[in-house]
Amino acid sequence: METLGGSLFAVAGAGESHGPAITTIVFGCPPGLELSREAIQPYLDRRRPGSNKLGTPRRESDKLILLSGVYNEDVDQLLGPEVTTHVNGEATSSPSYEAGITTGEPIAALVLSAAKRSADYDQLAGPRGEVRPGHTDLVKHFKAQGFEDPRGGGRSSYRSTISDVIGGSVARLFLASTFGTVFLSSIYRVGSLEASVRLSERVEELVSSSEAGKVMTTAQVGELEDQLADADLYSLDAEFATRAKELITQTRKAGDSIGAAIEIVAVNVPPLLGEPLYDSLKLRLMGALGGLHAVQFCEIGSGQEVVSRKGSENNDPIRSSGYQSNHHGGLLGGVTTGMPIVCRVGFKPTSSIALPQQSVRNDLTEIDFELQKGRHDPCVGVRAGVTLESRLAIELMDATLAHQARRINPGDFKLF
Amino acid sequence: METLGGSLFAVAGAGESHGPAITTIVFGCPPGLELSREAIQPYLDRRRPGSNKLGTPRRESDKLILLSGVYNEDVDQLLGPEVTTHVNGEATSSPSYEAGITTGEPIAALVLSAAKRSADYDQLAGPRGEVRPGHTDLVKHFKAQGFEDPRGGGRSSYRSTISDVIGGSVARLFLASTFGTVFLSSIYRVGSLEASVRLSERVEELVSSSEAGKVMTTAQVGELEDQLADADLYSLDAEFATRAKELITQTRKAGDSIGAAIEIVAVNVPPLLGEPLYDSLKLRLMGALGGLHAVQFCEIGSGQEVVSRKGSENNDPIRSSGYQSNHHGGLLGGVTTGMPIVCRVGFKPTSSIALPQQSVRNDLTEIDFELQKGRHDPCVGVRAGVTLESRLAIELMDATLAHQARRINPGDFKLF
Amino acid sequence: METLGGSLFAVAGAGESHGPAITTIVFGCPPGLELSREAIQPYLDRRRPGSNKLGTPRRESDKLILLSGVYNEDVDQLLGPEVTTHVNGEATSSPSYEAGITTGEPIAALVLSAAKRSADYDQLAGPRGEVRPGHTDLVKHFKAQGFEDPRGGGRSSYRSTISDVIGGSVARLFLASTFGTVFLSSIYRVGSLEASVRLSERVEELVSSSEAGKVMTTAQVGELEDQLADADLYSLDAEFATRAKELITQTRKAGDSIGAAIEIVAVNVPPLLGEPLYDSLKLRLMGALGGLHAVQFCEIGSGQEVVSRKGSENNDPIRSSGYQSNHHGGLLGGVTTGMPIVCRVGFKPTSSIALPQQSVRNDLTEIDFELQKGRHDPCVGVRAGVTLESRLAIELMDATLAHQARRINPGDFKLF
Amino acid sequence: METLGGSLFAVAGAGESHGPAITTIVFGCPPGLELSREAIQPYLDRRRPGSNKLGTPRRESDKLILLSGVYNEDVDQLLGPEVTTHVNGEATSSPSYEAGITTGEPIAALVLSAAKRSADYDQLAGPRGEVRPGHTDLVKHFKAQGFEDPRGGGRSSYRSTISDVIGGSVARLFLASTFGTVFLSSIYRVGSLEASVRLSERVEELVSSSEAGKVMTTAQVGELEDQLADADLYSLDAEFATRAKELITQTRKAGDSIGAAIEIVAVNVPPLLGEPLYDSLKLRLMGALGGLHAVQFCEIGSGQEVVSRKGSENNDPIRSSGYQSNHHGGLLGGVTTGMPIVCRVGFKPTSSIALPQQSVRNDLTEIDFELQKGRHDPCVGVRAGVTLESRLAIELMDATLAHQARRINPGDFKLF
Repeated sequence: METLGGSLFAVAGAGESHGPAITTIVFGCPPGLELSREAIQPYLDRRRPGSNKLGTPRRESDKLILLSGVYNEDVDQLLGPEVTTHVNGEATSSPSYEAGITTGEPIAALVLSAAKRSADYDQLAGPRGEVRPGHTDLVKHFKAQGFEDPRGGGRSSYRSTISDVIGGSVARLFLASTFGTVFLSSIYRVGSLEASVRLSERVEELVSSSEAGKVMTTAQVGELEDQLADADLYSLDAEFATRAKELITQTRKAGDSIGAAIEIVAVNVPPLLGEPLYDSLKLRLMGALGGLHAVQFCEIGSGQEVVSRKGSENNDPIRSSGYQSNHHGGLLGGVTTGMPIVCRVGFKPTSSIALPQQSVRNDLTEIDFELQKGRHDPCVGVRAGVTLESRLAIELMDATLAHQARRINPGDFKLF
Repeated sequence: METLGGSLFAVAGAGESHGPAITTIVFGCPPGLELSREAIQPYLDRRRPGSNKLGTPRRESDKLILLSGVYNEDVDQLLGPEVTTHVNGEATSSPSYEAGITTGEPIAALVLSAAKRSADYDQLAGPRGEVRPGHTDLVKHFKAQGFEDPRGGGRSSYRSTISDVIGGSVARLFLASTFGTVFLSSIYRVGSLEASVRLSERVEELVSSSEAGKVMTTAQVGELEDQLADADLYSLDAEFATRAKELITQTRKAGDSIGAAIEIVAVNVPPLLGEPLYDSLKLRLMGALGGLHAVQFCEIGSGQEVVSRKGSENNDPIRSSGYQSNHHGGLLGGVTTGMPIVCRVGFKPTSSIALPQQSVRNDLTEIDFELQKGRHDPCVGVRAGVTLESRLAIELMDATLAHQARRINPGDFKLF
Repeated sequence: METLGGSLFAVAGAGESHGPAITTIVFGCPPGLELSREAIQPYLDRRRPGSNKLGTPRRESDKLILLSGVYNEDVDQLLGPEVTTHVNGEATSSPSYEAGITTGEPIAALVLSAAKRSADYDQLAGPRGEVRPGHTDLVKHFKAQGFEDPRGGGRSSYRSTISDVIGGSVARLFLASTFGTVFLSSIYRVGSLEASVRLSERVEELVSSSEAGKVMTTAQVGELEDQLADADLYSLDAEFATRAKELITQTRKAGDSIGAAIEIVAVNVPPLLGEPLYDSLKLRLMGALGGLHAVQFCEIGSGQEVVSRKGSENNDPIRSSGYQSNHHGGLLGGVTTGMPIVCRVGFKPTSSIALPQQSVRNDLTEIDFELQKGRHDPCVGVRAGVTLESRLAIELMDATLAHQARRINPGDFKLF
Repeated sequence: METLGGSLFAVAGAGESHGPAITTIVFGCPPGLELSREAIQPYLDRRRPGSNKLGTPRRESDKLILLSGVYNEDVDQLLGPEVTTHVNGEATSSPSYEAGITTGEPIAALVLSAAKRSADYDQLAGPRGEVRPGHTDLVKHFKAQGFEDPRGGGRSSYRSTISDVIGGSVARLFLASTFGTVFLSSIYRVGSLEASVRLSERVEELVSSSEAGKVMTTAQVGELEDQLADADLYSLDAEFATRAKELITQTRKAGDSIGAAIEIVAVNVPPLLGEPLYDSLKLRLMGALGGLHAVQFCEIGSGQEVVSRKGSENNDPIRSSGYQSNHHGGLLGGVTTGMPIVCRVGFKPTSSIALPQQSVRNDLTEIDFELQKGRHDPCVGVRAGVTLESRLAIELMDATLAHQARRINPGDFKLF
């Protein structure tokens, strides 16, 4: 069954790119967390294509509707945006939830799809439909035996990551309120351009100089977040961001697309999360981050640099105050050490380009392919940060619950 | 994670009794099945409390909205009921799906809750909230650490079975179109009243006299369905149904409630479904049916009668045409034999009654409990049939996919 | 994947009736539990056919070998029975584990099969193999496409429940040491004979008169255990046990077999265990107990009796000291209340009988079937108690970990 | 629960580095595959540390014992190596399985641990135990609350990958016999040394010039396998292998260790394997390969090179004969295209080194750490190839079954 996370905290999603809505169910949030529509919406806004000038011009307002999983003693405070349906002439209306406290029951959320131009995708439909190189169109057509939804890649669209972000928002709100955990990301490569500043390095400086033991303060986090949000692209290196933005614009004008790489970091991470071996947190993170659409590599800690290192260089010294460096990227043996978790992923250039390409139709006859319509990010990696942060948060959340499961406190089993 | 079914076909649900909506996601339906809103709605109608005169007077229209998982080359045919949200003054509208062909992607569905009177449940809220005997109120209050939604039992309400029925509808439509499988149920006990006709016996007569090998024809099925629908309660024995209806009405007037038992039968079942031992179909069915709200017993085939039998009486003789009797109820070693699957479950009397009872508040102080408001079925078993059929269909569907998984046909793995 | 339990505590098994060994892996036991080969062996001895005079005369010594998952600072104390293999003339020996403390890693165990007479099963092998009525032989032959192991039912044999008992032993040792939980069972029906004493009634008397709040003392438990072990069959009613033994002996002499029913009870159960709805503990228990080989019905609490009750009779009154009766059988809404868990299951008569029966060969040609060889319990229910207790313990263990998972104690996440 | 693979094909393992044995259960192999002890053993031999001169000098014979899951009509052919246990003076012996045909039941395997010198690890035991930098010792000590097995890293040892290789062997034998799929790997980096030949390039040349449509012949595969086996290290570039071997030897003499990188390739892969999004094969492979011990990065297809590419460079052209290049590494949208699957992973230098390092004891007091004893690979990546191939095979196998599950062939559901 297709879910993100594990058996204790998981996100299920449904909905195609040009379908009526993306539906999300988040399972396993413990009771007692304050949760509101407005606390989740900003993460969806960061994910949205229109959220920066470089993304696809397609306008998606992506407004979150909360449908279950919270409660409030003052029932009026629960009342949020109205949802209305008209079936066979009969209208039904119900207010969705505005804000409440989680009950421990599944949290359902709906994001309606506002602006859709399905006609844009007639080029791709049916046995004579044209196959977009680099996309999953062809394999999907055969796998679905011709019954796939061809509009915008159907469910394989990036739009499906709305569910990742909703689930990730719940996870990060829980982890923040319980442990002060924070998730950040910074773009460090676009094409051949490379940022001169790495988020992981900045974070490790702050953490290693902290007095309270390898943690970042709220102020330090806020400062980094502002810096990331202020740049032309979500990057700590504002100057790089400006040049990268320019490169992306030029690439788009040339009808082409370009790759990118992002660093994702979690700080104030509780130690001891993660199960060994086949269910290790490293395995889970490599999968969840490396498995995102368009990602072609994933690394943790020092990543590919370790190959050329000696053990004496790579092992992180340990003192009674903690690890003295973080080549391990916050995970040893697949278990968190409390040091920042550091991951990097690289995205291929967006597959949809305006330039002509060799391709086939769904019936395998050859064509010179030229994309007729559709609006696309020229650099899909640019807005992936919040999705990657979300996936990291989801996995940490599940690992948190799994760790707690083995620490039985009989006092937690009381009724009379 | 809370889902019904298995790893290949599963139903996830969310939504509380008095929340905005019940959200459902159905995973694992293969591509190629014709599916429409109108094909599912009748099953929801059968489940609805207002669907017979004996159920709770609460009116729930329970209109299904399809949000994903189907497609139609003629995109206009997809267009169904409009869904509208108003967020911060901005209205968003999207047509939901009317009818299409499954793509293999998750099928999401929404059922808005129309009529809710939350004030009915003030009696139960908070630390001074009163505990309804027989309900899960008290354990839930402690399990959720006081953060439960007390309105109508929150998610523990029977209303959550909307998801079961949606998922079951998809499963039965698939199994019907592929194998001709049909699911039926008949009430055979209400309190001490007992039907003189058993559905299982009628079905086995028809099946054993069939010329095409242990199957029922469409006409035979239709006749039984009509008979069931025509009775005062969903039962093959119309005379029993009339008496039972009278008993339920009297019991309700007396402020009390009453138990019931139902037989569930699947015919034209493909043989060889079910994995052995820990994942056997018998284990799955006992769990799925026996685990439904208010069920206290579950039996398969001859059930409790086998205890007093000799092996020579209980073993079903086998001829080259098939099994000569069906004490085994369609399952041997947890695997289907092709004979009708026969299950029976018994429901306790509805816990909510008008008579006074000894109870406590959530803070454990003692009270004389008297239910102030709320509308309740006096006999919860009476409308459970379609839910039980649905759960049976869901498990058969998952077992069908699991059986096929081990029969590799290389021809199904072709692209170029 | 075929496992017993859930995602947090689970038992995986492998091995056929007449294969070299039953292999078992138990996942999810928290670190810190004292565990020894000798603490598990008595449960296996109770399961063993030769453990009473009524079982099959086949002698199976079923000696447990522990292969992983425990450690002891005094490494010598770990050393247990030697295991030796001879491969291509090279002998390898290793001491297995005698006793240690669980590390949290998977616990592997091996039970070699000593006495096997495969020739007994030639009658059943191959396309011309004869099908035993009542058994899974035929469906298995077709499901496995002719590649099944026909010896003694292969893996479908009762012998596979060795894994259930090993996993259940770990679970009950953990639950006993943490919560004082105890698992008992008593046979109450053999054929038409019925015991005059029910274990559940005896237990509820003791619990309701306890001063420390609905618990049984170690002395009370010990007394019941002695009584059960002393009877001719594992039953609280010694006089019934003697008559039942006689009935079973007569039935065997007549070449026939007979059904039975058992009550399984857990006392001193921690409250609040169990997730709602689709993953409720009631669903899990109905599945795990009702899904065991040869079981045809399963009930919880008052079981089938609730059908004829009024709500005013069936609801259990609540006082500040706890529930005043236990019609609910320890579960409300699928969550434990702390009252004893009460389940009953009924077994069909053993399918293997000496009398002639109508059957077919695997190629579906008709035969008059007469079992040539093989040794069989005439009443399979008689020794199933320890397996049912084990399955109940496994499910409670998983639910215990799942409950704890949602109660985050930040103090359990500390390293430096 | 800790397993490798998915819900249809999975491997469960148990056993610590210095425990009695590694126990493995392989779930989900369909019936009908010829399987023998001798067909699996060569893969275990490749995994074994003593299998090349550069690995740890510790001698592990790692002889496989098959305990379940196969059958042979000629029962004598089943008989393999004898297993003997001595419990309380009573010896039990049973022949394990030599060769048979899979029945569809779980396949259990045992590998006894022959040579163990636990005293080597006294340095690491208990609260005063010393923590090896780079290892999981410290987090494990805290996670297990002091109950970990400290000998050789306990279950976190590389020895646990015996289960991966056994499960992978079953998978590759099935995939080879059904689709001709082959798994290969080649070391291409050791420290700063880089091979001049990439396995993926060689394979893609062969595949693109094949006449039978993107496949490699048995002869071509054999030639590559010989070349890999003949080199000083498992690498296509023999000259690089010789230099790398020298570097590793020098590094070991210097008391240090060194990193490495490996390319893993599957050819003749059936297309259409893999589910979308959260359960995509890309996600699964990134996790399974990237999650292996000591791995710090994982890439698929062109990997990190895609970041600097334009879409027009990176998209693989499609003709009616298939994809014209393989930048996508055999996966589009997480689904196989039939092109070779190409993955690369990088290993950190072995954490165990002889040089002194800063560390702490388990009680967090600081020490100058110097490893006293123990035998270690100086370059753990060198013998990881077969484990990575195995993990790739396991995931492909599960995806194969999952794909088939959705292609219902009613003819596969027949009994009478």
